[in-house]
Amino acid sequence: MTNNPFWHSDTITLRPYPRGFHLITDEIIGALPQIREVEVGLLHLWLQHTSASLTINENADPSVRTDLESYFNHTVREDSSYFIHTYEGSDDMPAHIKSSMMGCEVTLPIQQGELQLGTWQGIILGEHRNQGGARRIVATLQGMAR
Amino acid sequence: MTNNPFWHSDTITLRPYPRGFHLITDEIIGALPQIREVEVGLLHLWLQHTSASLTINENADPSVRTDLESYFNHTVREDSSYFIHTYEGSDDMPAHIKSSMMGCEVTLPIQQGELQLGTWQGIILGEHRNQGGARRIVATLQGMAR
Amino acid sequence: MTNNPFWHSDTITLRPYPRGFHLITDEIIGALPQIREVEVGLLHLWLQHTSASLTINENADPSVRTDLESYFNHTVREDSSYFIHTYEGSDDMPAHIKSSMMGCEVTLPIQQGELQLGTWQGIILGEHRNQGGARRIVATLQGMAR
Repeated sequence: MTNNPFWHSDTITLRPYPRGFHLITDEIIGALPQIREVEVGLLHLWLQHTSASLTINENADPSVRTDLESYFNHTVREDSSYFIHTYEGSDDMPAHIKSSMMGCEVTLPIQQGELQLGTWQGIILGEHRNQGGARRIVATLQGMAR
Repeated sequence: MTNNPFWHSDTITLRPYPRGFHLITDEIIGALPQIREVEVGLLHLWLQHTSASLTINENADPSVRTDLESYFNHTVREDSSYFIHTYEGSDDMPAHIKSSMMGCEVTLPIQQGELQLGTWQGIILGEHRNQGGARRIVATLQGMAR
Repeated sequence: MTNNPFWHSDTITLRPYPRGFHLITDEIIGALPQIREVEVGLLHLWLQHTSASLTINENADPSVRTDLESYFNHTVREDSSYFIHTYEGSDDMPAHIKSSMMGCEVTLPIQQGELQLGTWQGIILGEHRNQGGARRIVATLQGMAR
């Protein structure tokens, strides 16, 4: 390990995803070959939106992502009569709430050029709008260079 | 960009806010002029409390913040009969739960002296107590100096 | 304060905890004596699992942790008829949901060799499986050395 501090930042534009939870680990790693240059460090991912979210969950059985979508639709109901922010559609205010429940950021540890995800962990985009479009992520990579 | 690592930490005492969700982006940026010295970096904000939260959500229409308050009051009911931690008031245990749901911290990316918030993103304090008082935030700023 | 960037990473294996919320502040600090070497910095904790969580909440009255467990069991019901990811047991899918609601990571500020937790704040493991076993945390410590 050198004593060289390493910083790299980039903006990643994801392809548009339909409403639901989507595994984006490979899309993120593919966009950031610089991860391999880091001996020990952190990768910070920041979604620049308030109606989608970034979360960590199971990377294997896709039924986990289906059930996440079902649960959050049940617990944040679109027909809640007390919502007043409704003019952008019935999916809009629930999307804002889900974004605050899961958050718009993750920070991932890096060792020896690899993200230290657990065996079953994947990076997941929660797309909470019916037509969310292409979402932007600001990636900030820091650490000690290898 | 120089090769100088930059660290700055400070404690920000917010003015007291009533129960609800409040936009504090300007209060944070105003307290940290050092953000302008950072070419690429991160700002970590840590609320030193367990009955309030920090979250990111819409910075424009205030009805989003009103609906966030309505939703979380509906989903974490003060009159839940199974709560045993009740001696500090009916708003206390719900406040602890909301704090864990949204979290007490955010980390924001910085490029060329500016926070990289999306167009519609603001930093929001969730004040979950009826009389929360003045809340303290530990701010830690790091990066490469411009 | 020197101008020496400091990075340290380690994997902490927690002792197995029963289902519920558990204070692990002392276990974390005990495993990372290097915290005392940091003048200003950050400690990032990453739980390598998708059915448990890391959160910050009250470190004093244990009834807060009991009520957190009661609340999340009520709001994420094991008998939800719409779950399809059920073959690992009725506690499995709810555990994944709770993990995304609270998250699997925390980043804590450090000043003068000490975590800057508020008076009432503790680091809490949310063990959401009935038999979760020993959980692993990747700890990444960075800052300026004292």
